Amino acid sequence: MPQSPITITAAEVIDLRVPTSDQMLGSDPFHKAPDYSSAVLHLETNTGLRGVSVVFTIGAGTDWMCHGIRDLCQLVIGTTLDEFTDSPFQLYRRLIDHHQLRWLHDGVFRMAAGAVLNAIWDLWAKSLNQPLWKLLVDLEPEFVADCIDWRNLGDALTREEAINLLQARRAKVSEREAAMAERGPKAYCTAGWLGLSDEEILITIRKLQAEGFDAFKLKVGQDSEADVQRIRFMRDAIGSDAQLMVDANQFWGLTEAKQHVEQYRPFNLKWVEEPIARDEVLGYVELAETFADASFDFACGEQAASPVIFKQLLKSGAIKYCQIDAVRVAGVNDVMAIILMAAKYDVPVCPHGGGIALCNMIQHYGMWDQIAVAGHSNTQLVEYIDFLQDAVERPVDVRDGCYVTPSAPGWGLEFRSEFIAQHSYPEGDVWKNRPADKKGVTFEAR
Amino acid sequence: MPQSPITITAAEVIDLRVPTSDQMLGSDPFHKAPDYSSAVLHLETNTGLRGVSVVFTIGAGTDWMCHGIRDLCQLVIGTTLDEFTDSPFQLYRRLIDHHQLRWLHDGVFRMAAGAVLNAIWDLWAKSLNQPLWKLLVDLEPEFVADCIDWRNLGDALTREEAINLLQARRAKVSEREAAMAERGPKAYCTAGWLGLSDEEILITIRKLQAEGFDAFKLKVGQDSEADVQRIRFMRDAIGSDAQLMVDANQFWGLTEAKQHVEQYRPFNLKWVEEPIARDEVLGYVELAETFADASFDFACGEQAASPVIFKQLLKSGAIKYCQIDAVRVAGVNDVMAIILMAAKYDVPVCPHGGGIALCNMIQHYGMWDQIAVAGHSNTQLVEYIDFLQDAVERPVDVRDGCYVTPSAPGWGLEFRSEFIAQHSYPEGDVWKNRPADKKGVTFEAR
Repeated sequence: MPQSPITITAAEVIDLRVPTSDQMLGSDPFHKAPDYSSAVLHLETNTGLRGVSVVFTIGAGTDWMCHGIRDLCQLVIGTTLDEFTDSPFQLYRRLIDHHQLRWLHDGVFRMAAGAVLNAIWDLWAKSLNQPLWKLLVDLEPEFVADCIDWRNLGDALTREEAINLLQARRAKVSEREAAMAERGPKAYCTAGWLGLSDEEILITIRKLQAEGFDAFKLKVGQDSEADVQRIRFMRDAIGSDAQLMVDANQFWGLTEAKQHVEQYRPFNLKWVEEPIARDEVLGYVELAETFADASFDFACGEQAASPVIFKQLLKSGAIKYCQIDAVRVAGVNDVMAIILMAAKYDVPVCPHGGGIALCNMIQHYGMWDQIAVAGHSNTQLVEYIDFLQDAVERPVDVRDGCYVTPSAPGWGLEFRSEFIAQHSYPEGDVWKNRPADKKGVTFEAR
Repeated sequence: MPQSPITITAAEVIDLRVPTSDQMLGSDPFHKAPDYSSAVLHLETNTGLRGVSVVFTIGAGTDWMCHGIRDLCQLVIGTTLDEFTDSPFQLYRRLIDHHQLRWLHDGVFRMAAGAVLNAIWDLWAKSLNQPLWKLLVDLEPEFVADCIDWRNLGDALTREEAINLLQARRAKVSEREAAMAERGPKAYCTAGWLGLSDEEILITIRKLQAEGFDAFKLKVGQDSEADVQRIRFMRDAIGSDAQLMVDANQFWGLTEAKQHVEQYRPFNLKWVEEPIARDEVLGYVELAETFADASFDFACGEQAASPVIFKQLLKSGAIKYCQIDAVRVAGVNDVMAIILMAAKYDVPVCPHGGGIALCNMIQHYGMWDQIAVAGHSNTQLVEYIDFLQDAVERPVDVRDGCYVTPSAPGWGLEFRSEFIAQHSYPEGDVWKNRPADKKGVTFEAR
């Protein structure tokens, strides 16, 4: 008797918020007091399997994402997993090129589309009882190419180039897979959040060093003197051999960025992240030229809203570290395109982590890239955040400064039901008795 | 006795949709069957004055906009008009740089912020019993500069340059104002919607010519041969002296765009609009170089998501026509910045119209630009759409191919209450009995 196909029967979208602003974790010059949050999507099926994804947010606005995701889910309820796996591009295109919703642009709309796609990719991997990276590694090069929207990318990377690139890595995939089963992607961590004192930063560094980390990031964007002082403090604390990166979270205009970054030359930094606005392609081109002789290069991507923005940054040579995010663009389909473009231009993929369970997702991209696309682990760093690990049943793990290769099926993103009950907004325990000025949309950073 | 200040007491947000897809009006290669729609914002006050704005959408997704606008309105209810007029930038920055909502990026979030700002600008103009353009024209140059977020713009235009530019126009403002009272901004119209037959297009052209139009636009993006045939048809129909523009609505990738546009050289086109993606700055730079010797230049902006995207397109010389939209970016504050940058780079501001009542808004920007910023009307064309005029109490009007200078207070955007009752979604008369496959989120163009 043939099994009935896996069919999506319902969607649950949860507004999940954690009052991280109380500890000032995650703070930077723009996002002064984030409450790390997620729009969590559960796609239920007739089989008990559940597709899970998240869109990371930082408090207010999570409900905007939930609204959009709920709307899009109407389009997949009743469809089967087979329809998706026959051609993941078909659903991608129907969402992203939706003839009316497309008007909403990137941002909320593209992220909501990504949530739906990512949850179905999760379902697919779970139906195979495989972690997502393994599903991706095993896909035929032609199939990967067929998942991608080439409309706006062909001047940087053609479908044929992508297939050839993946094909060229095939001979060593088994070897790379075995190597990475021993030692996952190399990780780095932000020790210097903007809201933390030097003493707090030092404690964090020592803790991370004890876990094997030797690559650290520091937030900048205060006054120039204070920033330089903090960089010097960090460099002294970690020693001259450790890797040090700084992150301005888009706080400066181009002119100002040049002035600030000029002061950073003496500290042997690896990268300067988001010195300018997320969509300022020509500014990145100019920065790369201005600082061509510096020790550092430029990095960005966590808020790059589309593969087209990534294409320009990569093709022009403006960025030398490609910081994909797992939930900013439209899911696996978009991210595969970006990772392939990065490989063509020989730019290391250094995914953006943080938030709630984002690291659970990005580790799969690090695996896929380092096994099957770049095909090496020589230059990449995958971000790692050591808090909010209690949100999920299978927290990410690091050993000797590297991710422990994920083995849970799918993204490995199952939330603990108690965590959801406590943090659901606004009815969860941590929110329902919180004063009004510390929740919802208010003007002041809290 | 001092008057009590004008205070915002409530916000009403209306999901307004018109089933324009039945007539295929507004159709283009991406947006195959738009239902012209608007999220309409009414900010009520204690005085009877009401601030009105719209965010234009094309059917599905209007509810996403309404959700966001409602959320933001919580931040202005209870505030006074005086607080806003003391420093419009303060509210702008509190919205756009909101430390949590900022994460939602441009698109829905920036448009929602624009809706709130635009409604309060409307309220301000109404409190002075002036049309919005007149309020803008009368602002002191320093005040205009203080409305603008210079963070990411200074490398293209500084605050001081903006003030000097406005100051230099001051001597002739009265003269320009008098001239434009006689004859508003020159208008152009799309006659060749993609879904229309040659016969239908010809009827439209003759009607528009009878109204004094001599500048027409045609949608392209079908197969190259059909497009060229339609361009030839249009050119023959309007004669060699009339201005002809084509619009691909982002349908092509860069490589494909070059191939298509190459075929357009013989037809003495004025501009080629949106040949490529809305965020592909470097692609526009390359197109401008490739076709430097052609009759036409490139135009875009209706979906440019931020002033930073405009800045790059203007500073690089990639576009020669700046198509601001009234509701894509964050309201008057953002649009003033873009119009000032366009003036510095001597790029004519040719606003994007269409939709429901968008033309009611853009005419004010045309007026401000042509009186006080560019200070002339030699090169600009303001888009005009001749349908859905029954939505508002004071439809826009054209005479001899030019806008009739608007005189209604504010944007002049009061909707007819019967129109709202009929078209409110989903409970209005035109929607409540409509079959499910012709409303809401469905996959197929209808």
